[in-house]
Amino acid sequence: MVKLSLIPIYEFQRVRAAPIHKYTKLGLLADMCRANTLVSVKRAGSGHLGSSFSSLDIVTLLYYSEMNTAQLGIGQPDRDIYFSSKGHDVPGLYAVLFALGILPKDKFIKLRRRDGTFGHPDIRTPGIEANSGSLGMGISKAKGIAAAKALLGRGGRVFVMTGDGELQEGQIYEALQTAAHQKVNNLNVIVDHNKVQSDKPVAEITDLADLASKCRAFGWHVARCDGHDFRQLERVFAEFSEVADRPKMLIADTLKGRGVSFMEHPAALAACGGLYRWHAGAPDDQSFEAAFAEITERVNHELAECRLPPLQVEELAPEPRPASGGAREWVADAFGQALVEAAAEREDIVVLDGDLASDCRIRSFELKYPQRFIENGIAEQDMVSMAGGLALQGLLPVVNTFASFLAAKANEQIYNNACEQTKIIYVCHYAGLIPAGPGSSHQSIRDISLFGALPDCIMLQPCNATETRMALRYCIDAPKGIYMLRLVIGPSPRTIALPSGYRLTPGRGAALTDGSDAALFAYGPVMLNEALLAAELLKAEGLGLRVVNMPWLNRFDPSWLGEVLGSCRRIYVVDDHSPVGALGDAMLNALVTCGLLSTRRFKKFGVEGYPACGTPQEALQYHGLDGTSLAGMIRVDGESM
Amino acid sequence: MVKLSLIPIYEFQRVRAAPIHKYTKLGLLADMCRANTLVSVKRAGSGHLGSSFSSLDIVTLLYYSEMNTAQLGIGQPDRDIYFSSKGHDVPGLYAVLFALGILPKDKFIKLRRRDGTFGHPDIRTPGIEANSGSLGMGISKAKGIAAAKALLGRGGRVFVMTGDGELQEGQIYEALQTAAHQKVNNLNVIVDHNKVQSDKPVAEITDLADLASKCRAFGWHVARCDGHDFRQLERVFAEFSEVADRPKMLIADTLKGRGVSFMEHPAALAACGGLYRWHAGAPDDQSFEAAFAEITERVNHELAECRLPPLQVEELAPEPRPASGGAREWVADAFGQALVEAAAEREDIVVLDGDLASDCRIRSFELKYPQRFIENGIAEQDMVSMAGGLALQGLLPVVNTFASFLAAKANEQIYNNACEQTKIIYVCHYAGLIPAGPGSSHQSIRDISLFGALPDCIMLQPCNATETRMALRYCIDAPKGIYMLRLVIGPSPRTIALPSGYRLTPGRGAALTDGSDAALFAYGPVMLNEALLAAELLKAEGLGLRVVNMPWLNRFDPSWLGEVLGSCRRIYVVDDHSPVGALGDAMLNALVTCGLLSTRRFKKFGVEGYPACGTPQEALQYHGLDGTSLAGMIRVDGESM
Repeated sequence: MVKLSLIPIYEFQRVRAAPIHKYTKLGLLADMCRANTLVSVKRAGSGHLGSSFSSLDIVTLLYYSEMNTAQLGIGQPDRDIYFSSKGHDVPGLYAVLFALGILPKDKFIKLRRRDGTFGHPDIRTPGIEANSGSLGMGISKAKGIAAAKALLGRGGRVFVMTGDGELQEGQIYEALQTAAHQKVNNLNVIVDHNKVQSDKPVAEITDLADLASKCRAFGWHVARCDGHDFRQLERVFAEFSEVADRPKMLIADTLKGRGVSFMEHPAALAACGGLYRWHAGAPDDQSFEAAFAEITERVNHELAECRLPPLQVEELAPEPRPASGGAREWVADAFGQALVEAAAEREDIVVLDGDLASDCRIRSFELKYPQRFIENGIAEQDMVSMAGGLALQGLLPVVNTFASFLAAKANEQIYNNACEQTKIIYVCHYAGLIPAGPGSSHQSIRDISLFGALPDCIMLQPCNATETRMALRYCIDAPKGIYMLRLVIGPSPRTIALPSGYRLTPGRGAALTDGSDAALFAYGPVMLNEALLAAELLKAEGLGLRVVNMPWLNRFDPSWLGEVLGSCRRIYVVDDHSPVGALGDAMLNALVTCGLLSTRRFKKFGVEGYPACGTPQEALQYHGLDGTSLAGMIRVDGESM
Repeated sequence: MVKLSLIPIYEFQRVRAAPIHKYTKLGLLADMCRANTLVSVKRAGSGHLGSSFSSLDIVTLLYYSEMNTAQLGIGQPDRDIYFSSKGHDVPGLYAVLFALGILPKDKFIKLRRRDGTFGHPDIRTPGIEANSGSLGMGISKAKGIAAAKALLGRGGRVFVMTGDGELQEGQIYEALQTAAHQKVNNLNVIVDHNKVQSDKPVAEITDLADLASKCRAFGWHVARCDGHDFRQLERVFAEFSEVADRPKMLIADTLKGRGVSFMEHPAALAACGGLYRWHAGAPDDQSFEAAFAEITERVNHELAECRLPPLQVEELAPEPRPASGGAREWVADAFGQALVEAAAEREDIVVLDGDLASDCRIRSFELKYPQRFIENGIAEQDMVSMAGGLALQGLLPVVNTFASFLAAKANEQIYNNACEQTKIIYVCHYAGLIPAGPGSSHQSIRDISLFGALPDCIMLQPCNATETRMALRYCIDAPKGIYMLRLVIGPSPRTIALPSGYRLTPGRGAALTDGSDAALFAYGPVMLNEALLAAELLKAEGLGLRVVNMPWLNRFDPSWLGEVLGSCRRIYVVDDHSPVGALGDAMLNALVTCGLLSTRRFKKFGVEGYPACGTPQEALQYHGLDGTSLAGMIRVDGESM
């Protein structure tokens, strides 16, 4: 395993104290933060490097020179406040907060871990001022912070950073409009204009046209400069403090991946056929070592120029990486392939994407059927209502994005479409608790409840590749209505084996294990894996747990339900979701309606509270949803009978 | 009761066929539609006159001269398509569709009735092309329709009308951005720029600044003209058909209430201290007669000028208005008063509004505490995230708008705030099925399920004025967390009497009637009224129904639950909401967890399917939720035991 070394805090203090030119110093500090960011992401095994690097010069300037925050202290009411609306640039911010002694080392080196820091900003982390990560909310929230400061007579400026792809979100324009009208003038927005969003250049996904005049038309004071030039940045912030009659926006032209030659977007896009590969995910060992060497050599060269000794780094104790999980299966891959196959027979299929084509595995569809693929950018509401219009004309839209963004951001639009009683398939990718690294903004534990009260809505979550193909086929062939397909985004911890000859039948699931003491209903590869682990543990103790795969989240065939329960006196449901409004509740209703509960015992398990950030095992254990915890709860519950 | 007369279809045919100048003819037809619109709204007892009138000249031109729709027929794939995104101008559109013979008279004269037309556009009405009424979605949907036409090689242009206040919704800007980028050029947006939104001038609520240059900056072709001048409108549409390289927007300057002197906004605003009183609601008899006379006299004068005989009108058989309901109590009034009182002691209270201050009864707070009142316009996502920022600074935001728009449109923002574990009170006004006139876009039957899976969320719906004051007090004094207060917007059908000495206690409700055969749990004045009616009916048959007011929608005190159930063997819950994810489900879980269900019978009733439009009685009966239906179901259920 590659060796990881951190630039310790005293090195930042040394450079900060050194008698060298301010901008040279800021450049050194920013690069030192880049090195530490790289290390933390490599150590975590995931994280966003590209936009951490594009924003780091600005963030370094803000905390080391522009803002009073570090001096006054985070709790102080009159402090300047900075936060990032896009949020995935937070590893870079952590590096700055670590360098300033605000974020302790033991947390900083544990990015995306239960006892470390979150994959997206969360105020439970020292120095973080607001939760973000779900795009488009930051300017509105900063507006609230600035308005409160005015109301409470508190000092301090408010700075918020947005991405440029993020400017595709409508809420941004609501905020531009209201902030100007409400004269929330103590508001400084910095657009990290690095030109590249999740997969591709912004200009390809949804061009922002003339951004500066757009924002001026909204009544804002707008400046534009090189986001890597400290002199220019300082001049703009000085200019902003002179403008008292309106909110201010800086469009900072930056390079995505700034500071590592092969990660800077012009080179990176060319190297990867127009796709940018450093947006998320950790670099392989070779790329890591090349990047770390490039940054630290540049720093040492600069230090030498300033007649300062070279960097001392601190080797980190190797962190045992948790096993990445066995199966090679990804249900999302099966979905993507099945979608391409279905499109061959069904010319009415149109696929919509919200700038997550790679993650949602619909790139192959995009390449094969460009005319029937609509890249709608980070504009979920618009995407869903557009799907409604396509459906009104008789086409069959298949809408793709992450579950949190689709079910929650476009919920009203989904309802509006539903009221037209056309047919639309909504694919909720990245559903459930796992992966838990990105944090609560991305972990979708409410989507089933958000679709649940829609009339004519059928929800399905398949457990393996085969069932995924069956589920998509079912949705395509089914009559008019709203179909919600819920998919795990990561690799399956194991390939769930279905009974031979298994057929996907409305309202019916399948028992995966024998056992006549208790039945445990679950769905999807993640929770079924834990359910099967629990069954194995309990079997050794002589308790027969019948694990049932139940892909239908709100449909039940009463006769099947009776059969599958058989002689089981105890019924358990584990939801990869909040325990409210998911399979557990639907099941309980079905049991009571069918008279199957009577004297049986019923308990549901689910993601209680806010979803924990960490490795899969950390998150599952925290919520008591890993196999061992499930077995324990079932054991105890039996004893209490 | 005032006499109502309709201008019959043959009169429209006569004028259409008359050898007079085109623009004179269009003016006559538009005014004749105004007269019929006025009649339909008066007959319905509610409806939107102001924006029907401001848009009618444009809609008349489109259907009578610009579009091929009437000639080709509504079902024809190559037809031009028009719909209104704001939707509340639909009474005017109905009048045009009636005049053209597309909408039958028996439906047209039954605005907002079960067997008539919907309060907001619904495709189940002949001639209506899309559902709307929840603002901001129309351009996106029209984009989908236009994209489908291109994909399917269908002819016909796509026209969509928006309001100007509607341009405060962020989705509008998502659509402007994507439509330009995706080159959906067969898209013609008409902004009915009548300068006034629900309560006040747009410029006061959230100014749109330089609208034309704003939209040009988004890459659109923009034209502006007088929306009441047919010659100018024709010229613009001709110009639009020449522009093939981008989507087009017409900013049509109009007068809200155009055509009735005292309803036109300059006069109306002056007459009412800056508030516009003709946005929604039917005119009183005197105003109706004055308005009808003014329009028809103008039409007759014009006909005389053209040497044509005067209008013949058809008197409508008087429509017995359903009783408007007994009690003078409005729980929303009690909320507004209690909020003002609470603000005197609690300086941290800040009230946010989404352009519904009058309906939400927070105008008195606005007047008394202007510094702590934030009018955020029709921008719910921005409002909710701004509340999050205010809460991060330690203030207590009370967020107000209609339940549908708050719970569904800003759902992701509510979750993001919740993850910060601050304290915010969300007030869901216009919750539930009633009033049913506005239609499914406004009837909120999913809000409880949309809040349900939020950790730390407590939901309450009070049944009368007293309990409303207690509920607000509870939310204000309670610890950190998310509080959702659900309020009926209309008058209470009766004032629900609570037991003397009643105290609002977490998890506890109160029995309102004796009865030991069955217990029926309900909440809010509307459903409790029906529950009490059911109890009265069943009592006469010797069945004792214990009606229980349960204001806590997701909290239960087990010991109280046991007490209140007593010897009742049958448990019923009636939700003013979809039966999925509301009190019924929470109650069932509580009963099972507390071991109180065992051999008891449980059934839940709620709003199944899509909410019906009509009078309160029509909607309640349609969904089987009126007292008689409830009694019937409970009776039958007992017999089947």
